[in-house]
Amino acid sequence: MRPAGTPRSRAHRGRRNRVASPSLAASAASRDARETQAMRRAIELAARGLGTTSPNPVVGCVLLDAAGRQAGEGWHRVAGGPHAEIEALAQAGQAARGGTAVVTLEPCNHTGRTGPCAQALIDAGVARVVYAVADPHPRARGGAATLAAAGVEVARGPLAAEAAAGNAAWLTSVRLGRPHVRWKYAATLDGRVAAADGTSRWISSPQARAEVHRLRARADAVLVGTGTARADDPHLAARGVPGARQPLRVVLDTEAKAVAPGARVLDGAAPTLIAVARDVPPDRTAPLEEHAEVLRLPRAAHGPGLDLSALLTALHRREVVSVLLEGGPTLAGAFAAAGAVDEVVGYLAPVLLGAGPTALADAGITTLARALRLRVTDVTQVGSDVRITAVPAEAPTFAAKES
Amino acid sequence: MRPAGTPRSRAHRGRRNRVASPSLAASAASRDARETQAMRRAIELAARGLGTTSPNPVVGCVLLDAAGRQAGEGWHRVAGGPHAEIEALAQAGQAARGGTAVVTLEPCNHTGRTGPCAQALIDAGVARVVYAVADPHPRARGGAATLAAAGVEVARGPLAAEAAAGNAAWLTSVRLGRPHVRWKYAATLDGRVAAADGTSRWISSPQARAEVHRLRARADAVLVGTGTARADDPHLAARGVPGARQPLRVVLDTEAKAVAPGARVLDGAAPTLIAVARDVPPDRTAPLEEHAEVLRLPRAAHGPGLDLSALLTALHRREVVSVLLEGGPTLAGAFAAAGAVDEVVGYLAPVLLGAGPTALADAGITTLARALRLRVTDVTQVGSDVRITAVPAEAPTFAAKES
Repeated sequence: MRPAGTPRSRAHRGRRNRVASPSLAASAASRDARETQAMRRAIELAARGLGTTSPNPVVGCVLLDAAGRQAGEGWHRVAGGPHAEIEALAQAGQAARGGTAVVTLEPCNHTGRTGPCAQALIDAGVARVVYAVADPHPRARGGAATLAAAGVEVARGPLAAEAAAGNAAWLTSVRLGRPHVRWKYAATLDGRVAAADGTSRWISSPQARAEVHRLRARADAVLVGTGTARADDPHLAARGVPGARQPLRVVLDTEAKAVAPGARVLDGAAPTLIAVARDVPPDRTAPLEEHAEVLRLPRAAHGPGLDLSALLTALHRREVVSVLLEGGPTLAGAFAAAGAVDEVVGYLAPVLLGAGPTALADAGITTLARALRLRVTDVTQVGSDVRITAVPAEAPTFAAKES
Repeated sequence: MRPAGTPRSRAHRGRRNRVASPSLAASAASRDARETQAMRRAIELAARGLGTTSPNPVVGCVLLDAAGRQAGEGWHRVAGGPHAEIEALAQAGQAARGGTAVVTLEPCNHTGRTGPCAQALIDAGVARVVYAVADPHPRARGGAATLAAAGVEVARGPLAAEAAAGNAAWLTSVRLGRPHVRWKYAATLDGRVAAADGTSRWISSPQARAEVHRLRARADAVLVGTGTARADDPHLAARGVPGARQPLRVVLDTEAKAVAPGARVLDGAAPTLIAVARDVPPDRTAPLEEHAEVLRLPRAAHGPGLDLSALLTALHRREVVSVLLEGGPTLAGAFAAAGAVDEVVGYLAPVLLGAGPTALADAGITTLARALRLRVTDVTQVGSDVRITAVPAEAPTFAAKES
């Protein structure tokens, strides 16, 4: 127990006294509350762009007028289309003058297909800009500095972690130079992805399966390995999702023996990339090249399969920002072993099998102390199943980093 | 589409018209609402007895006076103690006259350590009795008939499924003549209960482990098999639970080779039963008999281990109503194969291993069509883990059955 009047207690009172007057303090608190509410809305708006803005980030913006009332809002809808700030400014018109722009991401500073947002905000006479996440992109960053140099008040806003989570794929791509990898699996309560005889249709509920199509539509690429290609002849396109942008379908077919002409993944529903080992004879890949692009990669340094780092680099070069990994246990294990699983989405069906392959295999972990520890970010019932979403416990929290 | 004025439509209107007046309809609706609220409270009260009333059911009772106001409440606290109705009547006193007793279970009709509740309700002048679940017990049932014969209005009440779920162990015991079996496991997201090298401490969070001690305190018996006894030297008592009644610790040690003198399960913290095969030489069990009871059982007709049906019958004879199965994958698989898993409580830790034993093995299921299908009844985050509770999809809903 610290007695009243100790130096620390006095210092604390001193800090409080620095707020000039009760009414000013109240108005600062109400401004914070308004901006937090606006940021929450901006994050919601941003999420509407998931699946259509890649390779750009998703961004949402809410414009408050000088009195703190909402005057406009916008979000980045599609790559090449107007940025969120421009949409919100257009809606707000003259009301933007002296107002505050609340944005999920630091306004961009470069002239791309649309002009720099920082300059547009300055031109509109916005007095204050609050943003949640700093722009780490080497070409676009610096917007905050441009704004400040023009006399605009700039503040790092609230809900940074939420805003960063909404842009996790893009932030991963910019910071790590490889796509964000979301590993999706459907298993029984005892962790099986199929029965002993290989039957696996259907472990999960129709609702969970419909949701997977929405995950595919949000991803730039959907990825499976040899085992899944051979066992399931998967189609991998997003079906039943109105307005879906089809993902690139990627099959890791190391020996070019799993995907044969006639495979469902080779139809015209979406583009397809077949990754094979560099040393596979060309006559084996020739029949595929009519229907798909063939990518030759080095083999993995250890174990079977391809060099995943080379694969991810190749996908990054094609502006693939997000990958939905739907591969079987072995491929998922290879990604886990490579530290290239950024999010896990597991659909757990209330089913027990007691035999059959498990969701993850050969991740190179032999003892509990070396286990891959995650942090649960969401638990939701989907149909009769339970969806658990988790991220690596040691994952960088991009929100906390300055660019 | 059925046109207006068909016989069925008229009949429907006719039924509605039978309600004498709007005010009577309103008063019936408000009575229903009051009784539903009272039943919800009675179910809450009943749950307080879990862990101390066995081999009796848990029961809660709320007494409403003639005007519908709550006049008393009670629950069955401990086997041998007063029944819920008697507690509630004592609290209500004269206010019970002309009132309504809302009870989770049909009032008993037999004179045990306390008199029959049906007669006590009649003697107190209660005008109406609403109960959720019929008493299936051959010795106690018939309370409703006794009440009706004495002119008391008797009705099957609301929330029957909830009330039955609260008494699942006791209802299973009475109806099936064997204990209710709750299988608890802790696994990684990919279904592993240990790493490849056998390390398993700790997969689950401290909060989940503390909760398991509460599950033990609620169970009449805690059960493990040879593998767990050998690998973990488990203690199996309920620790850190104030006022806990210790469960009977049961180890299935078929060959009497897994539990040796000095094993933690043989200490004095709780009674212990070691089940061995009938043909095990007595000199092998003699050293155990100083510290535990040894139960000789037939071997399983198929596969290794003991005859689980004989085990459950023996436990039932000892008035073991509820078993917490903490056994490893093989024992859990044997119970699942025998159709003797009544509830599954899985603690899923956000951990990935990719190798190691899975939660359930050898359940005799080789194809998905024969999988054990469950229904999720609860999903809760416990510490960093996710607890999923499920019951067999085909489980009898005791609430719907008449005795």
